[in-house]
Amino acid sequence: MNLPLGYRYASTYAGIRKAEKDDLALIVSDTTASAAAVFTRNLVQAAPVRLSRAHLRASRGRARAILVNAGNANCATRTGDRVALATSRAAARLLKVPVEQVLPSSTGVIGVELNPKLITAALPALVAKLSPEAFTGVANAILTTDLKPKIAFADLSIGGGTVHLAGLTKGSGMIHPNMATTLGYLMTDAAISPRDLQPLLAAATNRTYNRLSVDGDTSTNDTVVLLANGASGLKPNADDRAMFQEALTWVMQDLVEQIARDGEGASHQITIHVSGARTEDDAARVARVIANSPLVKTAIAGSDPNWGRILSAAGNAGVPFDPAKVDISLQGIPVCRNGLAARFDEAALAQKLKASACRIRFLIQGPGRGEARFWTCDLTKGYIDINASYRT
Amino acid sequence: MNLPLGYRYASTYAGIRKAEKDDLALIVSDTTASAAAVFTRNLVQAAPVRLSRAHLRASRGRARAILVNAGNANCATRTGDRVALATSRAAARLLKVPVEQVLPSSTGVIGVELNPKLITAALPALVAKLSPEAFTGVANAILTTDLKPKIAFADLSIGGGTVHLAGLTKGSGMIHPNMATTLGYLMTDAAISPRDLQPLLAAATNRTYNRLSVDGDTSTNDTVVLLANGASGLKPNADDRAMFQEALTWVMQDLVEQIARDGEGASHQITIHVSGARTEDDAARVARVIANSPLVKTAIAGSDPNWGRILSAAGNAGVPFDPAKVDISLQGIPVCRNGLAARFDEAALAQKLKASACRIRFLIQGPGRGEARFWTCDLTKGYIDINASYRT
Repeated sequence: MNLPLGYRYASTYAGIRKAEKDDLALIVSDTTASAAAVFTRNLVQAAPVRLSRAHLRASRGRARAILVNAGNANCATRTGDRVALATSRAAARLLKVPVEQVLPSSTGVIGVELNPKLITAALPALVAKLSPEAFTGVANAILTTDLKPKIAFADLSIGGGTVHLAGLTKGSGMIHPNMATTLGYLMTDAAISPRDLQPLLAAATNRTYNRLSVDGDTSTNDTVVLLANGASGLKPNADDRAMFQEALTWVMQDLVEQIARDGEGASHQITIHVSGARTEDDAARVARVIANSPLVKTAIAGSDPNWGRILSAAGNAGVPFDPAKVDISLQGIPVCRNGLAARFDEAALAQKLKASACRIRFLIQGPGRGEARFWTCDLTKGYIDINASYRT
Repeated sequence: MNLPLGYRYASTYAGIRKAEKDDLALIVSDTTASAAAVFTRNLVQAAPVRLSRAHLRASRGRARAILVNAGNANCATRTGDRVALATSRAAARLLKVPVEQVLPSSTGVIGVELNPKLITAALPALVAKLSPEAFTGVANAILTTDLKPKIAFADLSIGGGTVHLAGLTKGSGMIHPNMATTLGYLMTDAAISPRDLQPLLAAATNRTYNRLSVDGDTSTNDTVVLLANGASGLKPNADDRAMFQEALTWVMQDLVEQIARDGEGASHQITIHVSGARTEDDAARVARVIANSPLVKTAIAGSDPNWGRILSAAGNAGVPFDPAKVDISLQGIPVCRNGLAARFDEAALAQKLKASACRIRFLIQGPGRGEARFWTCDLTKGYIDINASYRT
């Protein structure tokens, strides 16, 4: 793994969550980086989301540090705004950077006051141990109900050199499209202006984080940030930028697939590919209702090739199509042809569906060229276990 | 229970479902009844839904019989339309009524051919045993994964006499608003013209079946039919009609609550009451996202007063409100005041949440007068058990 140049990382246990496992992390760029971000579109927004937005406005899209805690969302609390500001200030002071170049994030339970002293007391040691290698430690520290850290990398050759891209994310539950969804941080050492950076992140988010759903819920804290510090000394030109867009989308897709695979209680990661819709938006809409159907998700959990549930879910998308012109395949095996049952070896397919990755292909015959991929996971008793006892 | 006059009922086991349990039923009015109906808005519609629609058009809203089977949805099959027509014709012949006065319904698995001979062979005996008392038998025969028959009644005094209203329904899974949702049949002996009947059913459906969700999925077969045969000899005048509307809504609400209580795997029925929204539609929209949130549903399953999930879900409704002006109570206990944690005895409330009925109150402070009730159930391992092995 080739990490981008000019970044340092650190994580520690600050006592925010009960389990003694790192819950506070810092990502610092050695120089001022261009910063782009997408945030939750939930009407209820956590204090750190509001403050990060304000900081990016004040800094005109520049940042030096990301301060993130797990174990408490700092949302719907009396002291939320004060806590977000006080902890960002403490980090800024120690790092000797302007406070508006610190972007705070939180994840965890909603409605419980977050004690800022836990963070400010841990910060000096956290800053002291910043190192270019501690990347995976940060990926571990931001996990909540996730089981595994999620990281992805890409190298990109441009104009006589190589720029690096690295991403880390957390997910698991309360994940749904139409927002940044969950926490994700992308770092690159390419030199890109804030003005050019935001559309790159927005386009990649639209095809990755906004096409991911675990349980249809959208958090109050969802945030994806992309930093570009230019430490490689390389500045992508207009042609390079299309390549950069692709690499960024690829890294973010990798992260999103990891989130789906590690969805709360998931036994199958599910990739849904819809094509033949009028537009990409229509295709994404069909894919989304399939992804969010508990009946589809439980069928996959049971390795049951119940394509009727897929067709029926698609019919609720509000997207016009002729059910008699739909082909569906599972794991590459056609199960529905022209809206009717195809002949297939059900036992053999049920066996194939025991694999941990499930592919659902939904093809609308006709001239439409809109297609979209969507990622989700199955719905199992594990999800119930995790969420019926979250706080206890 | 006072059944409406002039109706007969019968049910039998025709061998459509594997388990030897009645799966075919008839409801017959002794005279031609006015008929109103609401159907699924899923793009994928089962053959019996299409045929019932066509029959109501051809008969100008008149019907003599409802023919319904469980165990097979007769949807997305090669022979669907032919099967629906052939079985309706067979019933019409035996009952000596025009075929367009027979309304067929089916519920069960999608995409499997339905053998019409199972139905036509069973019909003569079914017709022979029609009786005014076999009402509950029909309620039993239409169940699929439901555990209990669902029936409700009302008497209504109008102009010197009494008219009767009776309803039976099935539900359990694949239930979601914005359609007729599931199967429901309402019979009355009041005399009401087809023209007056449809708006009565539409208004009652909007506040009952369209405010019910078990798992957010909408079936291809959902149908609610209201028959009015005039056998009481009483014709409600304009004033009586408002009372009839109320009685009908009350009966349908009773049925809907029974469906929520008997939701697949449900351990809690949940009633959500939202008030203070700008309009009733806005209130219903907020209630719906709360009802469909797996995080809310699993919290209730775990008797966990996790109001943060309720507030966060509401924030995704696309309805404007100020989170700082929201009060939430559970089982009548305030848990959130002005968008912040209220002081409450958590252990005592967790105990109260072990009751089988859970009430969620979501109040937006301010001048808005829009309010709505919505019914759902919690999400438990039982739901997974039922749906991960439906066909096997």
